[in-house]
Formats: sequence, structure tokens, C-alpha cells
Amino acid sequence: MKVVTFGEIMLRLAPPGFERFLQTPQFVATFGGAEANVAVALASFGLPASFVTVLPANAIADAAVAELRRFGVDTSRIVRASGRLGVYYLEAGANQRPSRIVYDRDHSAMALAKPGDISWQPVLAEAKWFHITGITPALSSSAADLALESVRSAHAAGLTVSCDLNYRKNLWKWGKTAREVLPEFVKLTDVLIANEEDIQVALGLEAEVDIQSGQLDRAQYEKLAGRVRSAYPNLRAIAITLRESLSASHNGWSACLHDGQHFLTSHRYDITHIVDRVGAGDCFAAGLIYGMLNGLTGQETLEFAVAASCLKHSIPGDFSRVSVTEVNALLKEGGSGRVQR
Amino acid sequence: MKVVTFGEIMLRLAPPGFERFLQTPQFVATFGGAEANVAVALASFGLPASFVTVLPANAIADAAVAELRRFGVDTSRIVRASGRLGVYYLEAGANQRPSRIVYDRDHSAMALAKPGDISWQPVLAEAKWFHITGITPALSSSAADLALESVRSAHAAGLTVSCDLNYRKNLWKWGKTAREVLPEFVKLTDVLIANEEDIQVALGLEAEVDIQSGQLDRAQYEKLAGRVRSAYPNLRAIAITLRESLSASHNGWSACLHDGQHFLTSHRYDITHIVDRVGAGDCFAAGLIYGMLNGLTGQETLEFAVAASCLKHSIPGDFSRVSVTEVNALLKEGGSGRVQR
Amino acid sequence: MKVVTFGEIMLRLAPPGFERFLQTPQFVATFGGAEANVAVALASFGLPASFVTVLPANAIADAAVAELRRFGVDTSRIVRASGRLGVYYLEAGANQRPSRIVYDRDHSAMALAKPGDISWQPVLAEAKWFHITGITPALSSSAADLALESVRSAHAAGLTVSCDLNYRKNLWKWGKTAREVLPEFVKLTDVLIANEEDIQVALGLEAEVDIQSGQLDRAQYEKLAGRVRSAYPNLRAIAITLRESLSASHNGWSACLHDGQHFLTSHRYDITHIVDRVGAGDCFAAGLIYGMLNGLTGQETLEFAVAASCLKHSIPGDFSRVSVTEVNALLKEGGSGRVQR
Amino acid sequence: MKVVTFGEIMLRLAPPGFERFLQTPQFVATFGGAEANVAVALASFGLPASFVTVLPANAIADAAVAELRRFGVDTSRIVRASGRLGVYYLEAGANQRPSRIVYDRDHSAMALAKPGDISWQPVLAEAKWFHITGITPALSSSAADLALESVRSAHAAGLTVSCDLNYRKNLWKWGKTAREVLPEFVKLTDVLIANEEDIQVALGLEAEVDIQSGQLDRAQYEKLAGRVRSAYPNLRAIAITLRESLSASHNGWSACLHDGQHFLTSHRYDITHIVDRVGAGDCFAAGLIYGMLNGLTGQETLEFAVAASCLKHSIPGDFSRVSVTEVNALLKEGGSGRVQR
Amino acid sequence: MKVVTFGEIMLRLAPPGFERFLQTPQFVATFGGAEANVAVALASFGLPASFVTVLPANAIADAAVAELRRFGVDTSRIVRASGRLGVYYLEAGANQRPSRIVYDRDHSAMALAKPGDISWQPVLAEAKWFHITGITPALSSSAADLALESVRSAHAAGLTVSCDLNYRKNLWKWGKTAREVLPEFVKLTDVLIANEEDIQVALGLEAEVDIQSGQLDRAQYEKLAGRVRSAYPNLRAIAITLRESLSASHNGWSACLHDGQHFLTSHRYDITHIVDRVGAGDCFAAGLIYGMLNGLTGQETLEFAVAASCLKHSIPGDFSRVSVTEVNALLKEGGSGRVQR
Amino acid sequence: MKVVTFGEIMLRLAPPGFERFLQTPQFVATFGGAEANVAVALASFGLPASFVTVLPANAIADAAVAELRRFGVDTSRIVRASGRLGVYYLEAGANQRPSRIVYDRDHSAMALAKPGDISWQPVLAEAKWFHITGITPALSSSAADLALESVRSAHAAGLTVSCDLNYRKNLWKWGKTAREVLPEFVKLTDVLIANEEDIQVALGLEAEVDIQSGQLDRAQYEKLAGRVRSAYPNLRAIAITLRESLSASHNGWSACLHDGQHFLTSHRYDITHIVDRVGAGDCFAAGLIYGMLNGLTGQETLEFAVAASCLKHSIPGDFSRVSVTEVNALLKEGGSGRVQR
Repeated sequence: MKVVTFGEIMLRLAPPGFERFLQTPQFVATFGGAEANVAVALASFGLPASFVTVLPANAIADAAVAELRRFGVDTSRIVRASGRLGVYYLEAGANQRPSRIVYDRDHSAMALAKPGDISWQPVLAEAKWFHITGITPALSSSAADLALESVRSAHAAGLTVSCDLNYRKNLWKWGKTAREVLPEFVKLTDVLIANEEDIQVALGLEAEVDIQSGQLDRAQYEKLAGRVRSAYPNLRAIAITLRESLSASHNGWSACLHDGQHFLTSHRYDITHIVDRVGAGDCFAAGLIYGMLNGLTGQETLEFAVAASCLKHSIPGDFSRVSVTEVNALLKEGGSGRVQR
Repeated sequence: MKVVTFGEIMLRLAPPGFERFLQTPQFVATFGGAEANVAVALASFGLPASFVTVLPANAIADAAVAELRRFGVDTSRIVRASGRLGVYYLEAGANQRPSRIVYDRDHSAMALAKPGDISWQPVLAEAKWFHITGITPALSSSAADLALESVRSAHAAGLTVSCDLNYRKNLWKWGKTAREVLPEFVKLTDVLIANEEDIQVALGLEAEVDIQSGQLDRAQYEKLAGRVRSAYPNLRAIAITLRESLSASHNGWSACLHDGQHFLTSHRYDITHIVDRVGAGDCFAAGLIYGMLNGLTGQETLEFAVAASCLKHSIPGDFSRVSVTEVNALLKEGGSGRVQR
Repeated sequence: MKVVTFGEIMLRLAPPGFERFLQTPQFVATFGGAEANVAVALASFGLPASFVTVLPANAIADAAVAELRRFGVDTSRIVRASGRLGVYYLEAGANQRPSRIVYDRDHSAMALAKPGDISWQPVLAEAKWFHITGITPALSSSAADLALESVRSAHAAGLTVSCDLNYRKNLWKWGKTAREVLPEFVKLTDVLIANEEDIQVALGLEAEVDIQSGQLDRAQYEKLAGRVRSAYPNLRAIAITLRESLSASHNGWSACLHDGQHFLTSHRYDITHIVDRVGAGDCFAAGLIYGMLNGLTGQETLEFAVAASCLKHSIPGDFSRVSVTEVNALLKEGGSGRVQR
Repeated sequence: MKVVTFGEIMLRLAPPGFERFLQTPQFVATFGGAEANVAVALASFGLPASFVTVLPANAIADAAVAELRRFGVDTSRIVRASGRLGVYYLEAGANQRPSRIVYDRDHSAMALAKPGDISWQPVLAEAKWFHITGITPALSSSAADLALESVRSAHAAGLTVSCDLNYRKNLWKWGKTAREVLPEFVKLTDVLIANEEDIQVALGLEAEVDIQSGQLDRAQYEKLAGRVRSAYPNLRAIAITLRESLSASHNGWSACLHDGQHFLTSHRYDITHIVDRVGAGDCFAAGLIYGMLNGLTGQETLEFAVAASCLKHSIPGDFSRVSVTEVNALLKEGGSGRVQR
Repeated sequence: MKVVTFGEIMLRLAPPGFERFLQTPQFVATFGGAEANVAVALASFGLPASFVTVLPANAIADAAVAELRRFGVDTSRIVRASGRLGVYYLEAGANQRPSRIVYDRDHSAMALAKPGDISWQPVLAEAKWFHITGITPALSSSAADLALESVRSAHAAGLTVSCDLNYRKNLWKWGKTAREVLPEFVKLTDVLIANEEDIQVALGLEAEVDIQSGQLDRAQYEKLAGRVRSAYPNLRAIAITLRESLSASHNGWSACLHDGQHFLTSHRYDITHIVDRVGAGDCFAAGLIYGMLNGLTGQETLEFAVAASCLKHSIPGDFSRVSVTEVNALLKEGGSGRVQR
Repeated sequence: MKVVTFGEIMLRLAPPGFERFLQTPQFVATFGGAEANVAVALASFGLPASFVTVLPANAIADAAVAELRRFGVDTSRIVRASGRLGVYYLEAGANQRPSRIVYDRDHSAMALAKPGDISWQPVLAEAKWFHITGITPALSSSAADLALESVRSAHAAGLTVSCDLNYRKNLWKWGKTAREVLPEFVKLTDVLIANEEDIQVALGLEAEVDIQSGQLDRAQYEKLAGRVRSAYPNLRAIAITLRESLSASHNGWSACLHDGQHFLTSHRYDITHIVDRVGAGDCFAAGLIYGMLNGLTGQETLEFAVAASCLKHSIPGDFSRVSVTEVNALLKEGGSGRVQR
């Protein structure tokens, strides 16, 4: 049941607590990136996961690889080449002050990578699932080509392909827009993950949902899923996450899934004391993959993915560090938070 | 008005903030244990408190003693013997993710202790109150015997005996169950402190309250207190704490007390941003002892104990560090949290 | 559009997180003081701001000056003289436990300063606005005289004078009361900033508002503003901040403004996860000055000031570190806290 | 064998590691002061020690008392009165850069204290030894008077009186010089502790030793001790510490003692990696008192005191935290530093 | 060239910097243990290394496994069973104050393990080298038996067996002495590593070297190696490390090797600013294994091992984190410490 | 006496203490760069200093500017343009383990800058001195051109031009070598600063000094200075720093100067406990500029520069934070490191 994820991993630099950048001369230094986050979450669920990327040959990149290895992620297929290790700076928000990200990922080894740099055949051998996101095609023209090559290879090799659209408006500076590039990926995708903004911007499908209001009309989501299914009949499943942003500290979190047969909606979690929401969507994707690979029903899969990613909000860093036992405990006993002793 | 408490003190190792275990190679290292927590809370209230335990003779145990001394707790009766210093690892939860405790207290000096290891006569001299919990009898057969010896000695010496049942399902591995052991303690107890789960599991008295729901039916608690009083007519007072677990970050907190004459219920505090709930029950016990020793009325005693332990939720570590002045300010002015300057 | 603020800056010593004083042998060491906070907030808004004070000539005071300079505040007019650098100890509260301040500012260089110690002519040259608070007159008799001298000089030089009453009950120990001293300042003031308690205690004007309840009757505030305007017809504008203290962690925050023509009320912000509320009122004052100096309407000015100071609650330390762009984003997009990436 | 020490305890604020003041917004916050340091060192040696001082009634002073209690020092005779808690800022030097101290102890409760503020009779009851230093008389005229009162009381009560001259050139600002004041103390002293600079400046006795060169001529020290003995025939013993300052990181450390019969010199320790030298002299004084009270020979006493204070250089903070076992291990096995496991 | 190491891994708790235990309520929390250290060092040299041990099934032990995985050590053969995770407390010394270790490893899962608990056949499959130390037999009678079983299995399977005697006087409490137990291990060993104390105490062979003086007579070491070779003719190589303890901060470090043909001595490194010496001996063992497995000459092997372990002294924690490139740079360019940029 | 320095400022990320990269998930985050370091050192000496660079418009670059402002450096001429903020990772060495720098400065705003991007006329107005280093020409072809433009402008405007060769072998990747580019700079330079390696590699002038041995033959340095003077007769002064690398922790530090008339050599400092040597050379350059601008003699200038930069070795971070008073104290009293209190 090996899963391969492919994308960029970056050094993440965040001030301590709720400080603004450089208020104290210190950064909490971890690693993250959508596809690496999915690999770590899958490994934490006990699945064999392999992460593929292109990194420079220096001591900081070595530390990124070591950190992935710590979670049991297979890193043996990572390629070393010229270019930088991408960096992103994250300032955690609170209340009405939003979290802020400053990207410093231009000219990364991943952005410089191009078709042919990775031998897909050995990477995909013995794997059943391939996961990518819409971030890699946003990095550069060559990275977009390489990403497309990866998806074609996985598709050709008979793997299930999942894609999380993950639209990032501050990327996509290399010439083409998400709308021009991503549809081709979706045509090769089996399982699509997105939020309402992704679908509108990247696929150009209209949603009658107001992404700013913090109020969600679940009925509209069924319509939206339907539109995606019509436009991309190749999709076996479509998952849409629903984040109600009440403040930087307090979100509602739920999701819906069209599993090919039914439109399903999940339990809604009220997350009142967000510790770190970065990577929660990636944990959702991992939960979805976990459920599908383990033969859970559509509803079970959806609830597992939402519960796992709900828990991610309570953990600092991009990585999820949540076990299947913990997800199941939340599903079974609810989130009353009684001390486990 | 000297109070003696007896039990185990442990090194408490917790990751910084809301990190999972060893996410950063660092532990916040403090000390705690139910009975030591009561002694510290009493000393913070200005009462002479003496803590008795058995510890190994090493530098880490020395630091535990020093830390107690810092609060003014009398440590002159602590016995040094073979065995380990118990350790407990605590991971703080948030939202739907519960706090998690990993005990490493097997083979501690306290667990190895047995009747005869402590000279109760000098320990209890000049004291008016003796406090114990249901944790010590859970540690080992010999610790249970020693605990019973302690209660018998205190009872015989005319001290008021309080006992907090504190059922811990991950302890009680030495052969007997709480249900088999604790009733004998309660028969020697004057003031019983418990929650609904303790009473059901340790005393086998049924409560029609749902401990998982986070919803509390206060009327049922009067019934429950009545059942305990019937079964143990020796009890002069029974206090039951009511924790409504909405999440790891948000609890409701209140208590009820049968003071021998009336069934009294307290103000309910909505604790929306829990800093550290470990030790809150112990602070409640200390508040109860404080009120009773100082001749407060039953209602005053109950409100003092609930307010003190409400404040404990805002303080990191097991120890309460709350003064009588601060408790009274909460009782008088409410918890509006205006800056004191 | 240069603004001059005048008052005391202190070393602020706070335990990490929610710890009580010296629970860990560590203090977070920053600087603050009402008037310095205003200067920093103005500089963060991009206005030229100059802070004037009296400091001793030692390395810790040098660090205070350097920290102000970091924000672009002009420190070239700060006077060095004998006396101490004031210190204040701050313990952050949570839930029902209030934050606590211990002042150690007696005998500071600022408290020892007296009329004649500062050459007001060069200090005020090229400035359009002068800001002071009711804290400086509370420090000592000579500081009160010097403060009055400053206001008279600014008034005479044609600057707009703003005064934030900032009543502190633990200061005012030098012989006169706020009620005896502050009205003279208000008579020289163009823009008055206060809360209901300030007005009652310092100006002796009654308010039918209950400052302890956490419940606010906005209608009563119009009356109160009217009373102040009647008593001090020189005032061009009166701003009153409305803090609803639900707990140390959760406040409502809004304000009202009589801009000389209309009584205006602001949006109310629900601040559910306070990071640091110290300095929020000073950020409000800075927002008011910013709006008035930039020709915003009364309502725009009020909303800018409230939004800026709402954001301050999310930032550790006395200083606001909020840009105009961020304030406008909150005004335009609301406080949904979506990650900015 | 109870020892009473009397003097000022201060909050000590030091940047982390070798940073300059406020390079990071953080202070390591501990407590210290010559006489408190002696009390803590004595308690660490297992002797009953009582520390007497005057402190304000606030939470920071409470923490100072609690910290002393942690070491087992008796704090029951500490007086609370008006005035501040003194503060001192310490920047640790390295190599050619010296450590730097900024005092902020003016107007402290101790400086404001005066004769009559302390009831010496109960303070001195059951004590055998009284220790004071030349720092307290340097604080203020009234503190000097109070200090003299203390020494007279101890002398009259038959206690052995020790005095460490501890000349501090940045204190002594109240009108009289050390030279005018301290001789009267020495006349009431049994055991005098000093370095060559103290003796020259405070007692006006010339020493042909060059205190700047870092080179020591031990023969000259015998002469110097002889001159002190001639001038103050009341002295039973005179100890002189010899610090060779090679750099802020590397010192030589030894001492000599005239025990009334012989002039004795100690082993010289080469301290190559100083961790914290503040408080080492106080640890020496405590070692001397320990040896004399326990009936060690003059040479044994001297070696114990030098070894103990040598070890202090390896411990952060003012306090010594060295046990008799550790001192004896150094004396017996030398300082080879093999891991103790 | 796979190497298998077998032994106990513990949680290591150390105060920050040079603080004494619990001076600050914080521990730096890492993992270590002689055999795990060897595995990590080998993995850092790029060799495939597998670590085998017995651990409890809890979250702290999981973190130990994850940390090993981070370095690329194979952890797939670790057995989970009942018992504790061992803990050791380490206080770093400086100058004349030695480092201090408090063991808390009684009743660990490793100490409870017994013959039959580990299936040696799959563990040793495809491996060429097996490494053990004299620590495991010191833990308990059953651990000693299991350790002997491991060595017999490795020997029988044709692996090269190395054993580091590592005598620890505070262990060996289960009934037999090192002298009674370890010779049997040495008889099955191909490559023996020891210091002069190990050889004297564990093998009973006299050495005319003074282990306390810090002075080394290299000639005597050749004699000593000869005696060991005579007593254990099965040994293919004997390596003896020479630590000259000048202080806790400053050591001389060198070694000698009889490689079966010649007695060789290494370069001596003067280590003047020790950062952390724990684990240096294990890094030496790893260097020896690396050299022998890679076909270096005896002298090259010895110099590689000494240089690698010299570098370990500059790295915090038990683990070495030194690459072959770095060791070779030291061998080739010397330790002038010029910045690599 | 305004001095302008021009070059790149970077974010500097260093692990805590002597840890290797990412051993703990934390970086100490400060700023540095040769020319910014000179500006900060000059400002710390009390001279008006202006730093010119090209930075991106983001929050991390804003923090760099703010940090410079803190020291009083004029930042008003800094240009914002596209490109990154350069980053460098620094791992502090100890003993035989060298410090290690990983550059991540490709594609920085400074590297992308080109002639015409900076208006030199206003930048240089009212300045007397212009300082540059050989690092900027190493960044890129366009940066080399811009740097040459800067030097020509300064020369034409009549400023004294100083240049520190600062050869960095891991830069210089854009096509030309230092040897091809830097001589043109030296022809426009008045005051040249270099070490022996710089002169050999960048100017191609042979030195009979062994840069690896750590042994220095001062006589050879006079020859070397003579060769430089012959090749570049335009030079008014040549300063050569002499670093003897004994280990990463221990260096000898001195310099020589040909001031146009005499060849002068300085005192040699033995720096036995290096805290941070990065930026020491820049502090030397600042000291040289300080001395020359203030009319010190050649010998005085040299000694000032060496003493200042000696002190820099004791201060963490790139920036020097040393005052003229402190430098003069070292010159006058030597580096005995006695506590300043």
C-alpha cells in the first residue's frame, strides 16, 4: 500500500509564540511543504510513504531529509541537484490578526528541476498511489512540466493519482495562470481535493459560496461538486474542505466528499484554540488516502480525514504527528479533551 | 492548624507549549503529585503544611525536596530509602486533542515503601489534619498497606482525615482493584473528596450521570452524595467536583458539598483558556481543608475551594501558587480579569 | 506631520507565557510606557514621531533608546540626568486570573525631573502635535510641574495637544490627587482620551456606567461625553474607549468619539484570545492622532483607532508593531484571520 | 552551630550567555547579594543558616524569600518595610572583555532601613556566628548605622563576628568613605576577610602588591596580614583572597590565612573556563566559617574555603550550590574532572 | 558492510549549559547509550547500521526510535516488551567540577530482557560486524545472559565481534562482578576496546599506569596490550583509549592499537574547550569499525578513530554527528579551526 | 565625519550554542554582512554611519533595516528592488571542529542590482569616507559593475575610499575571478585592508607566510606590505590582519599597518575563549577608519583597531557592540577582565 508524494519541501522559519517577525532574534526552524506533509501524515498513520523531491547538496537540506526519515518516510529517491533549499517565513496570527507567510522559494532546486531529472520508473515501483498538489506547477515552467510528467508516469503505471489543487495566489509568477495549467492535471487525476476558492480560480467553475463570510451553505457545495464531476468525468472522487474562518484563533472545520456514488458531508468541528493550522489540509488529504487504501466506506473515509485534520490544528509545525489510534479515539469518544492517564 | 499530607512526589516532564513529546529536545521539568500539590496549595494559603513521602537519596530527589521547601512546606519528615524517583511525562492537549500522561513510576521508593518505614508519631505530632489520596494505595501492595497504616495512625491520633479518591485506571496493577481496597480507607475518613467516576469505580456506588457528555445534571449529584453518606455514615463531609469537559482547552468547573447538614452547590466557572488543569483537583482539596480549618461556613468553604481551583487552571505546573487574597478577590469581584496595577 | 510624545519609558519584565513571577528564573525584557508606546505606534503607521523623556546614563537606558530607534522614533531630544530607569513587572493573566503589575518606578530620572530640565523650543520645533498622558503628573510633584510646563509650551507653540488621562490608582502618592491635578491639563488639551473610570476619578464627572460588570450601556456614554464637553469647552474632540472585561483572556473592545460635531460609536471587536492587552489604549490614541492628522473623517478616524488597537491585543509587548496596511485590511476584510500567503 | 548573616539581597538580571545587555529581549533572573550568598553556601554545607534583611512587601521580594527557603536558609526573621527591592544588572565578560555590573539599588528597603528596625535579640538567639560585609555600610548613612548596631549586638551577645570588607567603589555615595566607616567595624570583628584592594582602600594599610598585574608575590601578603594584625589586635583570624585576573575567562585563585598563630597559604587553583565568578568570594567566606565552626585546623579550613570557592566559579548565579562532599572530593582527588558515573 | 549494535538506549536529561540539576526547571532531552551511539556514528559515516534493543511500547520510547531513524539507523529489529525506558541525568561539569551522572535505569525493558527475547538469526542476516559493550551485562543477570547469547550468535554466524568493555562502577549490582562476567565475552571477541581502568577492573590484568594523575606513560600501554593479547589470544585487535583528564573542560585524547601485528600509537589531541565528552569513546569504537571494514591500514584506522572521537568532544549530546569528510579534513589539515566558508 | 558603507546584508541563522545545524529546531536569527558590520561598528564608536544596499520589500528585510536603525546607522538611502534577502547559515565550531558557513545568497536583491540602481550623488553627499569590500564584486557580474561604479563615484567625489579584500572562495562563481576583478578596485582605493591570503589570491602578490601553520613571521609581513605598495602606489595605507588559528576556540590576533610612512606592528592578543569571531575583521576595519578620521597617529590607529576587534571576539553575532570607552579601557588597563562594578 505504498504511497508516493512529490513536491517541494522548505525550511519553515517562525517566530516564537505570537511574536511578529524578528521581535526576538530567534526562529523556530522546522520543515514543511504540502506533499511532504502528506507523506509524514501517512507515515504517522502507519502506511509506507515515500517522498520525492529535488534538493541541493548542503547541510540544511540534509537536515530536511533526516527530519523526514525520523517519521519513517522513505527518502531514498530524493534527487540532489543545483539550486537552493526553499524557505518560508511564517508569523502566527491570533484573533483578528491573520497569520502571514513570506515565501523565499524562487530558484529552489525544485523550481529549477525539469522533465527527465527524476527516473519515475524506480520511484513508482511497488507503489499504489501517487499524490501531487497544485503548488509544484506554480513554481516555474519547468517544474510544471516535470509535475505533469510525474502525473502521466503515475497514471501510465496504473497508480491511483490524487491531486490537491492548493491554489496560492502569491506563486504562479512564471507566465501561465493556474487556470491555464491545472485542468490538464485534473484530467489525469482520480481523486481531487480542493476548497471552493481553488475550484473557482484554478478550474474556472463558479461556486455560489461566499469564501469571505465565514458562513457556509452546504447545499451549494453539492452543486459545486456536481459541476466538477461534469467537467472532469474521469474523477473517481472529489473532496472539498470547508474552513469557516471566524478568526485566526477560531475556525470551523468540515468537509464533503463525492465518492463517485454519493455526496457525503462530515461532522463539523469547532476549533476554538488553533495552535497551528498550516498543514491541516494536507493531513486531510492523507486521511482520505488512508481511508481509501484501507477500504473504508466513503463516509468513514471522510470522517477519518476530517477528524485527523481537526487534530492537526492542535499541533505546532507543518507535520501532523497524529496516530490512527488518536483519530479513532476522537471519532469514537468525541473531543471532550479529558486527560488520558 | 498544621496539615500533614502523605503520598508520592514525581518529576514531571512536559514538552514546551503544545508540542508533542520530544518534538523539541526539551522538557519543562517540575515536580508534582496529588498530595504534594495539596501541601503546596495549603502553604500558599499560609497554613503550616508538612509533606511526608519516601524518596531515594540522589540529586534529583534533593531538588524535589528543595522545590517543596521553596513554598514553605515542611520537608523535615521525608524519608530516604531505596527505589527510584517516580517520573511522569505530560503532553498538554488543545481543542479536541486531549492531554496525555505517560507514567514511569514503577519501583519508586514510594511504591517500595511498606508499613513501618515511617514513624507516624513524630510526623503527626501537633498536626490537626491528615490528607491522603487513592493514588498511593494504587502503587503497590506494600504502599497500600503503608497508606492504610498512615490513615489508621492519623485517625487514632485524633486528626481529621481527608481522602481524595483520585481513581487512576492506568495504575492499580498490583493485584487488587480500587473497589477492593479503597472502601477501607473511606471508613477511616472524615472528609471525602471525589468525582462521579471515582465514586462509581472505587466505591461501586452507581451515579446516573454521564461522565462523557460534558453535560451535568446537578440534581443527580445530590442523590449520589446521599448514597455515599448512607454507605459511609462516618463521613462528616463529602465534596464532589464537577468537571464539564468541552475540550482540552475549555472546561466548566464547579463542585457540590454535603457538609453533614446541607447539600450545597457552588458557582460554576467557565474556564475558556485552560493553561494547565493538572493539580486543580488537589487545589480544590486544599481549599476545602483551608475553609474547614478556618471555620468558614459550608457554603463559604465550598466557594473558596472552587474559586481557588478555578484559578489553578491558569497556572502552569502541578502546583497552585494562589494566595488567599487572590481567591477572595475572585469571590468578591468576579473573574473579569482587569489588569491589577 | 511630526508628533512629539513626552513621558516615562520603563524596562518591562514579564515571566514567560502564563507563569507567575519567577516561576522560572527568567524575564522577557522589553520596554514600554504609555507615551513611548504612542510614539512607536505612530512610527509604525509611518508618521514622524519623536519621544522625549529623561533617562539615566547607563547601559540599560541606552538599550531603551536603541529599541525606540529601531522603530524609527526620533530619540535625539531625550535628556540624560540622575535618577533610575523605572521598571515594571508584569505577570500575564488568563481566564479568571487577572494580569498583575508591580511598579518599581520611584526615584526614576523622570520622577526626579522638574521644570527647566527640557528645552521645549527645539523639542517642539516643526512638530504639529503634542501628546501626553495623566501618568507623568502622577509620578511626583516635580514631574507634574514639568508635565504642565510641557503642555503649556506645546499649547503656546500652536501644536494640537492630546491627553490620555490613564488614571493609575497605585501611582499618585506624592501628595495631590488626580482630581486636583489633571483638570488643569485638560483645560490645555485639544483632544482628550479616557475611559469611564478616568473621567469619574480624574475629572470628577459622574458616569452611570458600571465599570465592573463587563456590560456596557452605550447610550450612557453619549451623556458622559456631553458632560465632559460642557465642563471643558476647549476640547475639540473626546474619545472614550470601552473595554468589556469578560476575563483576562477575552474582552470586548470598542470606543466612541465626539469629534466636535457628532457623537460616533465604533464597531465592537470580540477579542477572544488576548495575547497582550497592555499598550492597546496607547495604540488607540496613536490611531486617533493618525486619523486626525491625515484628515480622515471622524468616523474613519474612530474606526481606524479601534481597529489598530484591536490588533494590538494580538501582539506581545507594549509596542504595537501594526502597519496602516494591516489596519486597513482589518477594516475592509474583517477579522476572519485567513492566512496571508 | 547556627550562623546569622545580614545584608541586602537583590534581583540579579543577566543576559543569556555572553550577550551584551538586551541583545536578546531576555534576562536570566536570579537573586544574590554577598551576605545572602554566604547564607546559601552555609546551608548547602549543611549548617543552619539564617539570613536577615529588609525587603518590600511585593511579589518579587516574595520570590527572593522563597528562593532562599529553597536552600533551607531560615527566612523567618526577614523584615518587610517600605522601599524598593534592589536590582543589579550583570553582563558576563569573556576573554579581554570584563564582566560589567550596573547597580540599581538606590532607595532599596535595605538602604532606607535604620537602627531599631530589626530586633536583634531574637535574631541572634541560639546563634554562634554573625557575618556581615562592608557593602551594607556603603548603601546609606542609616544602613551604616544599622549595620554597626548589628555588629555591636552580635559582639555583645557573644557571637563570633566575621566581616568581609568587600569594597565597592561605585557604592559609598552617601557622604562618608569606606576608610572613615569600616575601621569601626573591624574593631568589633573576630574574623576578617578581605583582598589586597579592600585592605588598602578601606583600612588605609599599604600593600606592596600590584593588583592590576595579575602577578602575585605571596611573601608580600604575609607582611600585609601582619600590618592588619598590628592595627587590629582584636582580630582572631585574617583571611586574604588572591585573585589573579588573567582574563575574564581565566583566573588564578588562592588565599592566605593568619589563624592567630601561623601565616598559611593555600593551594592555587588555575580556573581556565570561568562560568560565573560572582559570589566566589562569598563562598570562600562561608567555607572559612564552616571550617572554624567544625573545628578544622587552620590549614584545613583555608583549603576547604579555597576549594569550595574554586568550585563556585563553575556554577551560574550568585549562589554556590556546592556540597561538603564535593569540596572534599576536590581536596582529596584533585580537579581532574573525570565524569562521576 | 552492515553493522549490528546491541544494547540499551536511554533518555538523557541534562540541565541547560553548566547549570546544576533543576537550577532552572528545564532539561535538554536527548537519547543515548553506548551501543546506540556507535550505531549513530556509523550511520553518520555512511555505513548501514542496525541497532537492536528492547523498549517499552510508549510514546517516549517511540521518540527514541524516531531519533535513531533520523540518522538513518535501521530500527526495524527493535523489540517492544514490558519494562521501563531507562533514564540518565547528566550534569555537565566545568574546570575542577566534574560532570555527574545519575542513573535511573533499573527495571528497564532492557534489564528485564532475557535469552530468547530476540531472534538473532534475522537480526544478524546480511551483517558483517556485531558490536556490544560491557554495559549490558552489568544491567541484570538476565541481560548478561542475553548479551552472551547475542555474542555467541554473532560469533557462530561468522560476524566480526567487537566489544567495548566500558566498566561502570555504579552499575554491576545484580550479584556478579565485571571481573566474573566479562572475560567470557572477551573470549568470543575479535576486536577489544578498553581503557586502562576497564582492563584492570574487568579483566584483572595489572597496568602500571596511574589513571588519576592525568599523566600517561605510553610505554606502559604496550605492555598492557601485550598482557591482554597473552590472556586472550583469540583477539585480532586491541584498542586502548588514553584520556588525560586535566579538568572537566580540558582533556588530552589519544589511543593506541595492537592490530595483530604492530603496536601503534596515535596523534594526541589537546581538547581545550570540551563541549560534551559523553559518547566520545563510542565514536572511537565506530571509527575503528569503519576503518577496519573499509580496509584502512592499522595506523589509518587508529588515526581515523581518534580524530573522529576528538571531534565528538565538540558536539552536544551523546551522538557524534560527524561525517567522514570532516574526519578526513581534521586528519589532513589539522585542527586549526579556520571558518569553512 | 560621515562614513558610507555599501554592500549586502543577510539574515544570519545559527543553531544555539555549539549545536550542529538543526540539532534543535531553532535558529538564532540576526543580521550581518561585512559592510553592514562596519557601519554598525562605526555607529557604536559614535561616528555618523550610513549603510547603503539593495533589499527586497518584505517583512524580513524590514527587520534588517530596523536592526541597523537600532544602532543609529542611517538607513534612509537603502533601495528596495526585486530579488531575495540573502541568508547565511552559521554553525559555531569548537576546538578542532571549525565553524561552518552555508551561503544562500544567490539571486539576492544585491546580486541582481546593477549600475544605475543607486543614485550615488545624494548617497555620498556630506560624507568623508566610503568603505567597500571584495565581497560585493564576488556576487555577480552586475554587482561587480555596480560596486566599481560606487568606488569611482566616491573617488570622484573626493571621499577617502577604503576596501577590505575579504576573499571568499565559495563565492566568485559568476565567471571572472577575484584576481581579474579586484585589482581595479585597489587602484581606486586609499586604504587597503587584507590578510595574507587575500593578497595572494586576489592581487596575485606572493607572500612567504604559511597561512595554515598558525605560526606567523612578522618580518615577512613587512615585505608583503612593500610589494603591495609597489604594485599600487596610489595606496595611502595598507593594513594586514594576522590571525593565528590555534583552534576554533583559541586564536592569536594582531595586525600590521603601513601608514604611508612606517611599517607598524600591533600588540598581539591571545583570545583563548572565542565567543564569535565572525565580524571581527569588519570591526578592525571600522577601528582603522575611526582612528584615521579622528587624527590618531598610525600606531594609535592600529592599536585601536586591533583592540576593538579583539573585543568583538567576545560578542555573539556579526555586530561589534563595542564602545570607544571600552576599547580605550582595554588599551590602557589591559585585558585582565576584572569585573566592572
